[in-house]
Amino acid sequence: MRKVDVIGIGQTDVREHWARSLRDLAVEAVEAARRDAGVERVDAIFIGNMAASSLCGQANLASLVADACGLLPVEAVTVEAACASGGAAVRAAYLAVAGGAADRALAVGVEKMTDLLTDGVTSALATAADADYEAAHGASFVALNALLMRRYMHEHHVRREDFAPLAVLSHQNALDNPRALYRQPMTADDYARSPLVADPIGVLDSAGIADGAAAVVLSATAPERRSKRPPVRISGSASATDTLALADRRDPLHWTAVGHAAGAACRMAGLRPKDLDLFELHDAFTIVTALTLEACGFADRGTALKLAAEGRLARDGDLPICTLGGLKGRGHPVGASGVYQVVEVVQQLRREAGKAQVKDARVGLAQSVGGSGSVAVAHVLQI
Amino acid sequence: MRKVDVIGIGQTDVREHWARSLRDLAVEAVEAARRDAGVERVDAIFIGNMAASSLCGQANLASLVADACGLLPVEAVTVEAACASGGAAVRAAYLAVAGGAADRALAVGVEKMTDLLTDGVTSALATAADADYEAAHGASFVALNALLMRRYMHEHHVRREDFAPLAVLSHQNALDNPRALYRQPMTADDYARSPLVADPIGVLDSAGIADGAAAVVLSATAPERRSKRPPVRISGSASATDTLALADRRDPLHWTAVGHAAGAACRMAGLRPKDLDLFELHDAFTIVTALTLEACGFADRGTALKLAAEGRLARDGDLPICTLGGLKGRGHPVGASGVYQVVEVVQQLRREAGKAQVKDARVGLAQSVGGSGSVAVAHVLQI
Repeated sequence: MRKVDVIGIGQTDVREHWARSLRDLAVEAVEAARRDAGVERVDAIFIGNMAASSLCGQANLASLVADACGLLPVEAVTVEAACASGGAAVRAAYLAVAGGAADRALAVGVEKMTDLLTDGVTSALATAADADYEAAHGASFVALNALLMRRYMHEHHVRREDFAPLAVLSHQNALDNPRALYRQPMTADDYARSPLVADPIGVLDSAGIADGAAAVVLSATAPERRSKRPPVRISGSASATDTLALADRRDPLHWTAVGHAAGAACRMAGLRPKDLDLFELHDAFTIVTALTLEACGFADRGTALKLAAEGRLARDGDLPICTLGGLKGRGHPVGASGVYQVVEVVQQLRREAGKAQVKDARVGLAQSVGGSGSVAVAHVLQI
Repeated sequence: MRKVDVIGIGQTDVREHWARSLRDLAVEAVEAARRDAGVERVDAIFIGNMAASSLCGQANLASLVADACGLLPVEAVTVEAACASGGAAVRAAYLAVAGGAADRALAVGVEKMTDLLTDGVTSALATAADADYEAAHGASFVALNALLMRRYMHEHHVRREDFAPLAVLSHQNALDNPRALYRQPMTADDYARSPLVADPIGVLDSAGIADGAAAVVLSATAPERRSKRPPVRISGSASATDTLALADRRDPLHWTAVGHAAGAACRMAGLRPKDLDLFELHDAFTIVTALTLEACGFADRGTALKLAAEGRLARDGDLPICTLGGLKGRGHPVGASGVYQVVEVVQQLRREAGKAQVKDARVGLAQSVGGSGSVAVAHVLQI
C-alpha cells in the first residue's frame, strides 16, 4: 500500500454554535483544510458523524458536505463507529489513499449537539451502548462508565479524588488552545466540590457535549501543491472491536479493542509505546483515560492515576496526553472528536501548537474510542 | 489495485420480522454468506445501515455485528449514504480488499423498520432529504418523489397509468423469489385502483418498508476455501454525489450522480451499457426507475416508460431489471437493499436464481441510490 501524508488541517472553534448549522461547520473546517493543504480538489470525502440523524434530522451528510463544499460529483460517504466515528473517517480516508482508490481524500468530522433538549442528547449517546441489553434497561452512557469507575475504585483501592489530576490536566492544557470550549483553570478542590452526574462520575470527570467540525486532507506522498506546510506521515493505522455490552466482557476493566488498535498502529509504524512523544487519547470520562493508558501498556493495571499525580502526563512529562485539552477541555462534539485529535497531533508535529507546544514532538498517537471501549481506531503520525 | 471477487452471499427473507432483532437478522445473513463462501474469518466488516439509531435506538453496529458473529476483535465500521448505504458498504469492502488492507471483507446490509410507528419511519426516511430546506418544510421523502413524478408527467406528456408496467414487472418478478416480501401477482388495473400516497405516487409505485439483512464476502482472488461455488468478479465499482436538495438541481429530471456512478463503473469494467445482461436498479418509486434508466443511457429522455410497456425490461427482454422483484417486489429494508442487489446479481450470474433465472447472464450491474438521487453507488459484476 502507498504512503499517506496529512497535508492539510482545519477546525472550527468548539462551542455552542446555536446560530450555525451542520453545513456551516463542515464548510468552515473543510475550507480551512483545503487552504492549509494548498489544494482545491479531492477524490473522495469520508464524513465522521454519529448523531446528526437523531439530533438534527439529517442523514446523507455525503451529499450535504460534497454539495456545500463545491465538490460535486465527488465520491462521499458517512462513516459511523459511535464516538469513534471521527477516527473511523480518518481511517477510511487513509485506506482509500493508501490502497490507490484516491490520490487525495478528505476526512471531515462534524457534530452539532447543543441546540437541543439534553434528554435528546442523552438518548442519542445511549445508542452507542447495547440497545437491547443496556439502554433498554435505563443504562445511559454515563451510567455505564460510572459502573466502570466504581469497579476500578473497588479493585484498585483508589478514591474518587484520585481521578482529579486527570481532569485538572485537561483543563490546564485547554487554557492554551484558543479553539477549546473550556478555558477556565480548574483545581482539585473544584473537582471535589463539583456535582455528581452518575455516582461516582461528576461533571468534571466528563467531556462536555459541543458543536464543531474538523477536517484533514490526506494525500499520497509528494503531491503538487501550493502550501509550504510540511506533510505529516501517517505511519500507522488500525482499528479493532470488543463486545458491545459491558456485561459480556470477561474483564470490563481491560479494554482489549483499545489495546489492539493502538498496538497494531504502533507495530505498523515500527514503534514501541515509549517512542511516542504525545498521545491524544479519548478522555470522554476520566475513567476512560485510566483504562486506555493501562490497555495500551503505558501503565500497569491500577497504576494509571499515579502517572497523572506524578505529572508524567503533562506537556513536559514523559507521556504528554490531551495536549490541547483533550475531549474534556476542548469539548467533545462526538463524531468530530476523532478528527480533532488528528488535527491536534499534526499541530504539535508541525510546531504550530503555540503555548501548548510539546517540545521536540516528532511522533504522536491519536486514538478515537466508541461505546464503552467497544470500538477503537488508532493512528500514528510522524514528521 | 487488486482484483476482487464475491465468494459468498447470504440473505434473510425480507419480511416484517417482529420477533427478530437487528442482531438476529445480521447474524443469519453473515452466517449464510460465510457458509456459502466456505470461509470462517474475515479481516474487516463494513455494515450498511441507515436508520437503526433512529428506529431501534442502536448505533455502533460495528461492535454489535462483529460481536454477535463471533468475529471480535475484527475491524468493523458502519457506512451510511441514506438509502444507498448498502451499496456504500459493498464499495467500502471492495476498497479495503482491492487496496490491500484486507484479504477478505464482509459487507453486511441490515435494517429493521416495521415494529415501529409509521410516523417514525417517515421521519427517519426524511433524514435522507435536506433537513433545513426540504424536511423542515414538511416535505417527506415520498412527497419529493411525487414532485419529480408530476414534473416528469408534465414534461414528457405521460399519464400516471403509463408507470403501471414498471410496478407490474417488479411484482411479477418477485413471484419467483422466495425471499421477497410481496409475492402476489398485480395487474395494471390493480395499479390504477390503488390508493395514492402523495399524488401522483400511489402505494403500488412505492417500495414497501421491511426488515432484512444481506451479506457478501469479498476476497482478493484465488483464496483457499472449501466452497465449490464459482467466484464472481467485481469488475467495476464507483460512487458519485449530486446536490442534497432537489431545488438546487439545474434539471431535477436529470440524475447526474446516478449517471456518473453507473458510467464510471462500466468504464472501469471496459463495458458499454448494452453489454449488460441485467441491471438491479434502485426502484424505490417507479419514477426513480424511469429517471435511472434515462440517466444511465438506457433510454432517451422521456422514453423509459416505453421500454417497460414494450416488455424490454422483463427477464426475457434486452435489459432485464429488478429480476428478483427489485425494491418494489422484494421489499426495501433501506440500508440493506444495496447489498440485496449485489446478492441477487450474484445469484443470477451463478445460475442460482431458480425460476427467476435470466438466461445466459454473464454481466450484471447493481446500483444503490440515496436521497432524491443525491448519492449513487454502482457495481459491475461478471462471471
